[in-house]
Amino acid sequence: MRFFSDNAAPVHPSVLAAMADANALDTAYDGDARSKALDARFSELFGTEVEALWAPTGTAANCLALAALCQPYGGVLCHRDAHVQNDEGGAPEFYTHGAKLLLCEGAGAKLTPDTIRATADAIADDVHRVQPHALTITNATEYGLVYAPDEVAAIGDLAKVRGWGFHMDGARFANAVARLGCSPAEVTWQAGVDALSFGFVKNGAMSAEVLVFFKPGYADVTRRRRKRAGLLLSKGRYLAAQVLAMLDDNLWIANGRAANDGAALLGQAAGERLIHPVEANEVFVRMTPDEAAAVRAQDFDFYDWADGEVRLVTAWDTDRVAIASLAEAIAAL
Amino acid sequence: MRFFSDNAAPVHPSVLAAMADANALDTAYDGDARSKALDARFSELFGTEVEALWAPTGTAANCLALAALCQPYGGVLCHRDAHVQNDEGGAPEFYTHGAKLLLCEGAGAKLTPDTIRATADAIADDVHRVQPHALTITNATEYGLVYAPDEVAAIGDLAKVRGWGFHMDGARFANAVARLGCSPAEVTWQAGVDALSFGFVKNGAMSAEVLVFFKPGYADVTRRRRKRAGLLLSKGRYLAAQVLAMLDDNLWIANGRAANDGAALLGQAAGERLIHPVEANEVFVRMTPDEAAAVRAQDFDFYDWADGEVRLVTAWDTDRVAIASLAEAIAAL
Amino acid sequence: MRFFSDNAAPVHPSVLAAMADANALDTAYDGDARSKALDARFSELFGTEVEALWAPTGTAANCLALAALCQPYGGVLCHRDAHVQNDEGGAPEFYTHGAKLLLCEGAGAKLTPDTIRATADAIADDVHRVQPHALTITNATEYGLVYAPDEVAAIGDLAKVRGWGFHMDGARFANAVARLGCSPAEVTWQAGVDALSFGFVKNGAMSAEVLVFFKPGYADVTRRRRKRAGLLLSKGRYLAAQVLAMLDDNLWIANGRAANDGAALLGQAAGERLIHPVEANEVFVRMTPDEAAAVRAQDFDFYDWADGEVRLVTAWDTDRVAIASLAEAIAAL
Amino acid sequence: MRFFSDNAAPVHPSVLAAMADANALDTAYDGDARSKALDARFSELFGTEVEALWAPTGTAANCLALAALCQPYGGVLCHRDAHVQNDEGGAPEFYTHGAKLLLCEGAGAKLTPDTIRATADAIADDVHRVQPHALTITNATEYGLVYAPDEVAAIGDLAKVRGWGFHMDGARFANAVARLGCSPAEVTWQAGVDALSFGFVKNGAMSAEVLVFFKPGYADVTRRRRKRAGLLLSKGRYLAAQVLAMLDDNLWIANGRAANDGAALLGQAAGERLIHPVEANEVFVRMTPDEAAAVRAQDFDFYDWADGEVRLVTAWDTDRVAIASLAEAIAAL
Repeated sequence: MRFFSDNAAPVHPSVLAAMADANALDTAYDGDARSKALDARFSELFGTEVEALWAPTGTAANCLALAALCQPYGGVLCHRDAHVQNDEGGAPEFYTHGAKLLLCEGAGAKLTPDTIRATADAIADDVHRVQPHALTITNATEYGLVYAPDEVAAIGDLAKVRGWGFHMDGARFANAVARLGCSPAEVTWQAGVDALSFGFVKNGAMSAEVLVFFKPGYADVTRRRRKRAGLLLSKGRYLAAQVLAMLDDNLWIANGRAANDGAALLGQAAGERLIHPVEANEVFVRMTPDEAAAVRAQDFDFYDWADGEVRLVTAWDTDRVAIASLAEAIAAL
Repeated sequence: MRFFSDNAAPVHPSVLAAMADANALDTAYDGDARSKALDARFSELFGTEVEALWAPTGTAANCLALAALCQPYGGVLCHRDAHVQNDEGGAPEFYTHGAKLLLCEGAGAKLTPDTIRATADAIADDVHRVQPHALTITNATEYGLVYAPDEVAAIGDLAKVRGWGFHMDGARFANAVARLGCSPAEVTWQAGVDALSFGFVKNGAMSAEVLVFFKPGYADVTRRRRKRAGLLLSKGRYLAAQVLAMLDDNLWIANGRAANDGAALLGQAAGERLIHPVEANEVFVRMTPDEAAAVRAQDFDFYDWADGEVRLVTAWDTDRVAIASLAEAIAAL
Repeated sequence: MRFFSDNAAPVHPSVLAAMADANALDTAYDGDARSKALDARFSELFGTEVEALWAPTGTAANCLALAALCQPYGGVLCHRDAHVQNDEGGAPEFYTHGAKLLLCEGAGAKLTPDTIRATADAIADDVHRVQPHALTITNATEYGLVYAPDEVAAIGDLAKVRGWGFHMDGARFANAVARLGCSPAEVTWQAGVDALSFGFVKNGAMSAEVLVFFKPGYADVTRRRRKRAGLLLSKGRYLAAQVLAMLDDNLWIANGRAANDGAALLGQAAGERLIHPVEANEVFVRMTPDEAAAVRAQDFDFYDWADGEVRLVTAWDTDRVAIASLAEAIAAL
Repeated sequence: MRFFSDNAAPVHPSVLAAMADANALDTAYDGDARSKALDARFSELFGTEVEALWAPTGTAANCLALAALCQPYGGVLCHRDAHVQNDEGGAPEFYTHGAKLLLCEGAGAKLTPDTIRATADAIADDVHRVQPHALTITNATEYGLVYAPDEVAAIGDLAKVRGWGFHMDGARFANAVARLGCSPAEVTWQAGVDALSFGFVKNGAMSAEVLVFFKPGYADVTRRRRKRAGLLLSKGRYLAAQVLAMLDDNLWIANGRAANDGAALLGQAAGERLIHPVEANEVFVRMTPDEAAAVRAQDFDFYDWADGEVRLVTAWDTDRVAIASLAEAIAAL
């Protein structure tokens, strides 16, 4: 029973079915009807005109967004534990041609206007210092916390005043929205977000994320950058099909909620051991190496996050029985 | 009935079945058993130790290879009509950090040692000129010609003497090998090729190409570059599954042959109108705009290549009845 | 007696004197009074508001300009024999982060609207092809021809219609203006040029070129790029001093004329052997290897341009006696 | 009386004289005798075979070195207050094509093997994390401390074990060596340094720094990168002349010592107010805004480093009377 990563989860049957359904001769790249439908479907979902481009990975979506929002000689404000900083192998620097990540503090990998200002205001505005052009937050964060609409809006206000582009890494956007119970609009463009990496892979898709631009002018150049990065799959219809299946009947929300619910159960079991509140589908738990070994001996697999800390991740399909067993094992420590 | 591009073709049922078969929780990225099997499977196919990395597009595979073989301050010799030069939106320059494509001549987009030398020898060896570091050929070429093993070897010898890395863009490698009747080894590493973009997508896969390195030392850094480019899909097992299905029972060869056979029929029908010999699955035909319109009126779709020239492409699944009808339509012009 | 390159010439005494004159404690980088005076001095020279940045080399000035005018995913139209294409070691690709040089034809390295259109119009407007963002011409050209104001304007009109940035490489701008007898304005911004690399080094300065922007919005980001490229000398006042000395009393024009006059004498002597008309300070002459050896035996040094072709370059200080002797030697062949 | 920066100092008369002496027609770029002499002169100075390339700025020298030692997908360990991190406008990222600076701690901007390991050992060796390829230290540091030979050697040992390239930013190398009283060899290659940015501009030159490679294999590619960055001045002899003049009679050491001596006097006056020990030519002093204003009212100019902290810098030529006056003013606070 693996609680290693939601990346390890299988693909939802509806997604597989939609891909099989797309299996006919069609226009290549993103000229097919499914790919062309994305703009309208996401505009409907967000209640405003957006442009939506598929991409095969979240790293690609994030970095295309950063390249759109930040010049090579600029910088991107982010949390020091952000995925873009620590887990993308230098992709932000590759896509932006060497823009600098400007690191900010914040508990649970969550930024606030204050922590952002602390970093930004220490940078003199001269040619010797790289200037912030953009900022990015992750919702839900790398530690499984969520930004509520008003928290995003406070950051969005700051970005607007300073003239920074504002990106949200939504690798676990479904988990965040499921938790918040808000509309996708409230926590994104209505709060000042310019671009969203809308994650589907961790939530039941196979190989399709969507980069949503809430502001005009970015999508066209990003289409060129997407091709230039070798990301324009020639049979794009199979990516679009995955995404459309995830949107149908709000499957994305249902899957996000299922994963969250499992994590909540584990969080309750962990009690005092919890390092962060459990707001999405990740659970960070204090365990000594011996304790971790004891749990693993019961056939549970998970990630050693740091000394004396482990990470448990649930997915859309994580078996309730397994969750209950793991919860029991933790409670018994 | 579309003869527009082999990119438009559907996915082979065996590939879809293999993907469904892979649909279970597994290790993320390329840590799953299928991804790990690639090195051995391709080593067996090529009869030598190779390293094989999946990538979602041919452009990505090509450009990762060029980045491995060419420093940013170097150049890559290629045909002036090569896909890397004309159809990848600047991806070679992106991946190599600005290496220069050094253009060579040759009928049918086919290079020879002489045409390569003509370009290379005109470049003085000083810091003012970008020096060649690598060369790339496409087999089958962009005009549907194939390089036989001895033709590749003559180029490979030149590359070796000059110290250039040697890459083969095999977007239609299956069509080339099916035509040549040689072993994959003879037309690649035995002829001096260092890296091959082994194309599967045009030949029945959905979203998986394979970059094969015949020389040690390249794969490890390329794994880092693949991640850095946002190409490391988190559910990589579904890409590996596609590739393995294509290798099983030599499906890749069978599919390549099927496409070639269809093209051969069209080539025979085109007769004197042919611009290039038909050696793979592309047929370039002289047609006046009126003639093209007449053929299109019979419900055939194809690409206007240039003034008075059209391109017809067959795929692994192109219907024989449709091919016969189109052949008839052309013959009747 | 060397006719190898105007880069080999010494520095004009007035320039050296101005540098000595600047030798006092002053504000670093470009905060000193001399650096700050450039905008006004060049605005006066061009009869319009411009921004003027020093740079230590012509390659740097050219490539900063191209980076300002062309996105990384775009292309720059230029002559296939342009300095940016052949003699800058890949600097345009480095500064633009991999933009593509799109090569055009033209006798004497001189572009026309027709030759530019021939290249540009062959590029389909889709994401697979790199689109032109800018164009650059060299005045005087690499073969010593000049563009008259109306010739520049014809190209400028095309650039404007197409939305391309328009750069002039003026490594030998002084020679061009001296020859044309026009105002600097007529052959630049009045003809649609957005940015000029105004060369001083070949014409008597030591290490200072000036990048002139005729359009607002480019200089500020270029100041950042100049720093980012390690081009912001900490004692910039010595560069500004050179430039100001060259502008004083129109020394730049006088020097350009002197060099041109010497070349004209050589051109007359060469007569039928001339490969290009002599319009600036370069003379391209047909000579067999034996003839070249005979001239060299008389202690003249020059560059073998190509088989049976030599290049003679005069500078602001080239000795008239030496020129007369060389002219005689050529006439005697 | 300015204590703002050693960048503001004038050029030493011997340097100016050497430039005037070089003012004759000569081979362009680095083909002149002076440029060619650098390898031998620096080999003699360091008592080992080195290759030495001039560059117009310290930022350029640093970043060419980092590009030689670190691949684009790698990282460079440095202090979080290092010049490369904070004062080069993103040049390291530009030259390395997006390598990541990996920040380490240390009092006075000085690294130790422990602080380096703390950063490096937290980076898992997988493709998701950027791996260290190189490390750079500044000697004297940005806060005016020096690394003694054994301190450098301890870091050099670590670099060797880990396979990292090791660069020293010697913008104030003269000040460090003058302070240490060691040989240049002891504190560089004998301590494991692979590449040194040997600063001359802050120490009396005008526009010439030297990048010294102690290991073979780096200089040739760096010559190409230097051209590609637009740093290959066509009249390079004037840069080489500056450097040779600085080496003659150990002028560089004498100038470094003069600057250090002035700083020492200021340091003594500052006493308890000192933030860092004064080991080179920079003095960091605690002063309230009111105190700073009082000192400035006596016609002293200096940099506000941080809240309640000012930086005083002496140069090779700083007037002793002025230093004494400033010392008095500080002591009187």
